[in-house]
This record gives sequence, structure tokens and C-alpha cells, in this order.
Amino acid sequence: LDAAMGRAAAARQAQLTKPPGALGRLEEVALRLAAMQGRERPSVERVRICVFAADNGVVEEGVSAFPPSVTMQMVMNMAAGGAAISVLALALEADIELVNLGTATPMSPHPAVRDATIAPGSANLARGPAMTDAQCDQALAQGRAAALRAIDAGAELFIGGEMGIGNTTASAAVACALLEQPAAALVGPGTGLDSAGVKHKQRVVARALERHRRAAQATPPDAGRPAPAAVLASLGGFDVAALAGAYVACAQRRLPVLLDGFISSVAALVAVRLCPGAADWMLFSHASAEPGHALVLQALGGVPLLDLEMRLGEGSGAATAVPLLRLACRLHGDMATFAEAGVKGQAPLSAPQ
Amino acid sequence: LDAAMGRAAAARQAQLTKPPGALGRLEEVALRLAAMQGRERPSVERVRICVFAADNGVVEEGVSAFPPSVTMQMVMNMAAGGAAISVLALALEADIELVNLGTATPMSPHPAVRDATIAPGSANLARGPAMTDAQCDQALAQGRAAALRAIDAGAELFIGGEMGIGNTTASAAVACALLEQPAAALVGPGTGLDSAGVKHKQRVVARALERHRRAAQATPPDAGRPAPAAVLASLGGFDVAALAGAYVACAQRRLPVLLDGFISSVAALVAVRLCPGAADWMLFSHASAEPGHALVLQALGGVPLLDLEMRLGEGSGAATAVPLLRLACRLHGDMATFAEAGVKGQAPLSAPQ
Repeated sequence: LDAAMGRAAAARQAQLTKPPGALGRLEEVALRLAAMQGRERPSVERVRICVFAADNGVVEEGVSAFPPSVTMQMVMNMAAGGAAISVLALALEADIELVNLGTATPMSPHPAVRDATIAPGSANLARGPAMTDAQCDQALAQGRAAALRAIDAGAELFIGGEMGIGNTTASAAVACALLEQPAAALVGPGTGLDSAGVKHKQRVVARALERHRRAAQATPPDAGRPAPAAVLASLGGFDVAALAGAYVACAQRRLPVLLDGFISSVAALVAVRLCPGAADWMLFSHASAEPGHALVLQALGGVPLLDLEMRLGEGSGAATAVPLLRLACRLHGDMATFAEAGVKGQAPLSAPQ
Repeated sequence: LDAAMGRAAAARQAQLTKPPGALGRLEEVALRLAAMQGRERPSVERVRICVFAADNGVVEEGVSAFPPSVTMQMVMNMAAGGAAISVLALALEADIELVNLGTATPMSPHPAVRDATIAPGSANLARGPAMTDAQCDQALAQGRAAALRAIDAGAELFIGGEMGIGNTTASAAVACALLEQPAAALVGPGTGLDSAGVKHKQRVVARALERHRRAAQATPPDAGRPAPAAVLASLGGFDVAALAGAYVACAQRRLPVLLDGFISSVAALVAVRLCPGAADWMLFSHASAEPGHALVLQALGGVPLLDLEMRLGEGSGAATAVPLLRLACRLHGDMATFAEAGVKGQAPLSAPQ
């Protein structure tokens, strides 16, 4: 972060024609973006949304309200412009890129979908590792490549989204392992399980965590990969891994990231564990209705801008918060200063007693 | 409200390619707007922001951190495009109208400012009625006229803003009288009083409430005006009265209103007391950092979309929420249905036990 530019932006903000602090968190966002972008007047007009799609073998345990074929169908819906994230991207004039990391149902080639298939979905993480180390590295690299494409395209803000039936299960498992929490603390209804379904999903995640714990004990601590990457391969999904890879690359290349909801935040947690400095480049868009999100946000130290009870994923919560970032930048950049406007009120009167 | 259209919109929403309820409050906003506008696919592209400016005689009691000359200076700043609300209106491509109801410091004519001067500010409400009944009626009528101009211009959404040093004092006094609360429950720092300043402001409002109570007792109950109008004239400001008049007119003419923060919500409370049906036409944009706002919101039964610790007024909180309403409408109107997208996942699977 460019601390000097953050201070320059704060000095400008103190001169704008409003009582100090009266724009609340919009002021904080403008200063954060100024320090990230190294510009006294930041801008997030050029937004890149990258949606990573992948299936999750764990759905064979019955952990989702939707069948895995929906992943492929929803990517096609995104490509055709009919999904929530497509509508949002168009409304925001944001670039959108769809990256297929591997679906259980084969996907026909489509000009709007980048084929980066690793496998037809991850393996069933309740019974064995979700990915091989090589597959996990491939997914991380795909995320990194997507971030670099965003930078090459001139993006001022990166949003990562995901589409993958079963991915709240994988995300909850990863978060449980990283935060040392039981399944009950992080498993929720996802796309819409009832309470019996949530209980079942908790048991599946608990079984996966037990399997992971035993496998980790069997591996000598310094012979394996970095712990967060081992957790990711064992319990994650291709989409979660790609998001984590993208977030690390964004941080390394100084591109601000706007996180989405639960899955995105779990990927952010992986990114921060892999590369602690990545936290500086993250902005928090919304508090998801998925109950585990609060705990992950707490671990990341993030306070989201929005709390609209959204729980769709795809990057939709982050996209919804983009106008707030843009308005924060416009206000910061375009408001008149007291001197420019000839307003003489900046020195508060003291109230008579 | 058009309940049949609300149901038609809900039926459409149930078919969109997302888990039911996954867009959270954006879904609720789309259905409210559908019922208000009588359209299955509502729209709020055309937004009118009307800012009412007026000074408040009560500032001679030392209740504000800024001198009254700032009201005129800030209206000129708005007219020149330098104020927060001007920047927001431009960014949103919203129409903005500035209406001068009377400032203590004379205002030079400006093509962007509509002169609707009632008096050079209200009288000192701590010592006598803020307005005569005739002045109060003038202010209500100015608000009504502004709403009708918005409708004539084809507005799909009305935002009322205000600019007036001392207007949180008047608003707190009105809210105390209508909600039968003590001054301490509704008086806050406004533009930035310290705690001694807030204490002093509370004493001034308490004195005003005592004066009002005595005056109300002296008036035979059926000889006066409707109680909310009497409170408004006694304790309000021209801007608060104009906002109340605008909100009633919007409801009568079926134009949705997006409320701003504390002052706007107090005006909304007056509007609802004058015309209970007005409540149906109100949407709540943000929770202000001004502490009294929560109590007024509770009385109105409103849950705001945003909580960004803003406390600027001018209509700035409402303007900041406009993109959320627009995205809600776009999602509702433009997303594909399950049938259109060929997505076959809408019947949830039951989870195996």
C-alpha cells in the first residue's frame, strides 16, 4: 500500500465541503483505494469479474439442494446473459470472464467460456482428497492467470465469482480446517437445504475433517506442502483454489480485490494464509446470509459494506457493492473543497453554555 | 399499491435462475417497486432529487457547529456542482432541483436555484413558533409543487434532500413532539457538536418542547389545525415541512419515495401522521449515524438498505442507495427464468439421511 498517497488523499478529504466524517464508510473506502492504487483520486470504473466454475465430487453425498448438472447449465446461462452475475456485469459495464475448471456434465464449447478443464470436478472430499497436489496447483495457476489477464486488460478492481454445486460444502470444510472449528460452526444451507439437510451436510463435513486430520497426521510436517495448500487440496474445490490463486496474484500485482460472500471469503482466507500481505488488497462487499460467513469475516478482520441477506454467490454480492465504491471515488475526487466553494464554515463554533 | 402486480412480479421472481430468496433484500425491493409502479418489471432509471434549503432561527441558541451563512454558501456550492449531492446526482444521471425556501444570508439569483423564499429562515423555535400557520402551509405547498414537477418530468423515484444549518435541532423537536419522547432520545451531534454541544442542544429542544406543550394546552383541541401540522409549524423548519408536503403528494400521485436520513425520516413521520397511506410509498435508503434516526425508523417501521455511518443529509444517503434499487430492478427484469435458460434444478433434491 502507498501510505504517503493515503495521507495525501486524507488531506484532500479533510478539505471537502462536508462535516468531517459525514460520508462515513464511503470516506474510508476512498482512502483505502487511494493507498492501494497510489492515486490521490482513485477510480474503479474498469471492473473485471471472473467467475470460476467447477463441480465438486462431494455432491454424491447429497449435500446440495441442486443436482451437479446445474453447474454446467448455469455457466451456459451466464454465457447467454441470463444469470444474476451476467445482468449485474452488464448493468455495471464490467468485463466478465467465465472460466470452466471442470464440470461433471460436459460443457459444449462456447465463445464466452474459457475452457480450463482440470478434471470433471473434484473428487469426493468426504472419502479422499478433493484434488491431487498437481490439480490444486493447476487451479491456483488458473486463478493467477485470470488475475494477470485482468491486469493486462487495465482492470482497476478484481471481483472473483464462482459457480459449482456443492461448493459451500468444500468451502466450509476448508474454513473448518484453517480456523480449527467444528463443522457445525461453518456449515449452512447453501442454495437452500432444510434443517435436516444442513445436519446431514454437517456430518459429511465432519467426516471429511476427520479423514483430513488422519491424513495430515500421517504426513511428516516438513515433508509436505505449505499447510494451507495441503488443506486446499484435501478439502477444497477447483473454484475455491482458483479464487485463492487470483487473490494472491492481485495482491502481488497491486490490484484491489472486492470479495464476494462465503466461498470467496474462504478463498481469501486461504490466500492470506499463503501470503499474509494479500489482506491489504481486499475490500469486503457484503455479509452473506450463509451463516458461516460471519466467522470467516471475523478471521479476515473485514467489515462488509452491505448486508442485504444475499446468498447467491457468482460474485453477485461484490458486483452489487461496486456502485458504492464508484460513488465513494466520485465524491472523493469531484467534490469541491471549502476553499474552492468559498464556504467559510469549516472551523466549528463552540456552543455557548 | 397494485397488489395484483405485486403478485405477478413475485410469480416472475420465483422462476428466475437462482435459489429462491438468494438475492435477499434486492428481491423485496423489486417486488415493492412493482406494486408501487403497477409494472411487473419496475424501473428507477429516472430519478428526481429535490433539495430544499432554509435557515432555522434556532441557530441563535448556538445549536450548530456551523454558522447559518453556510446554508447559502452550500446551496451555491450545490448549484456549482461541488457538493456531495451534486456529485452524486451527476454520477447517477439523476435530475436535481434546488429550492430556496429562505436563507438568513441573502442568496444571489442563480439559474440552478428556484427561489421560493418564504422568509429569511424560520423563527427561533426555542422562544416561539418556528412558523406561522400560513408559512407552514406555504412550505408544505412548495414541497407538493416540487413533487408534481418531478411527476411531470417523468420521474420514477423521488428523493428529497435538505440543506439548513440547525435543521437537526428542528427535526429532533418535531420527532420528540410526535413520538412523545424527551429531547435526550432524539437530539444528536448533527454536523458535529461535541458532547457539551449536544447537551446544550438537548436543553434548547427541551425548552422548545415545554413552550410548545404550553401553547398546545392553551389552544382548544378542535379549534386548531391537525395536530401534526400544528407540531410542524411550532417546531419544524421550512425544509422539513416542504419534504413532508412532497412525500404526501408523491403518495397521492403514486410516485415511490426513497427516504434519506434523520431529517428526511422526521418529515416522513409528519407525512404519515398527516396522511397514513403515505407510508406505502416510502422506501428506506440508509441508517444515519445521527443517533435519533433509529427511533424515527422504528416508528415508521422501516429497515434501511444501507448502514454506512453517513450523516451528511442533502439527500446523499438516499442517492447512495439508488444503484441498489436500479440493480434490483435490472436483476428482476433481465434475469432468465429456469425455462428460458434450460436449467432443470428448481426442484430441490431431498437430502439422504
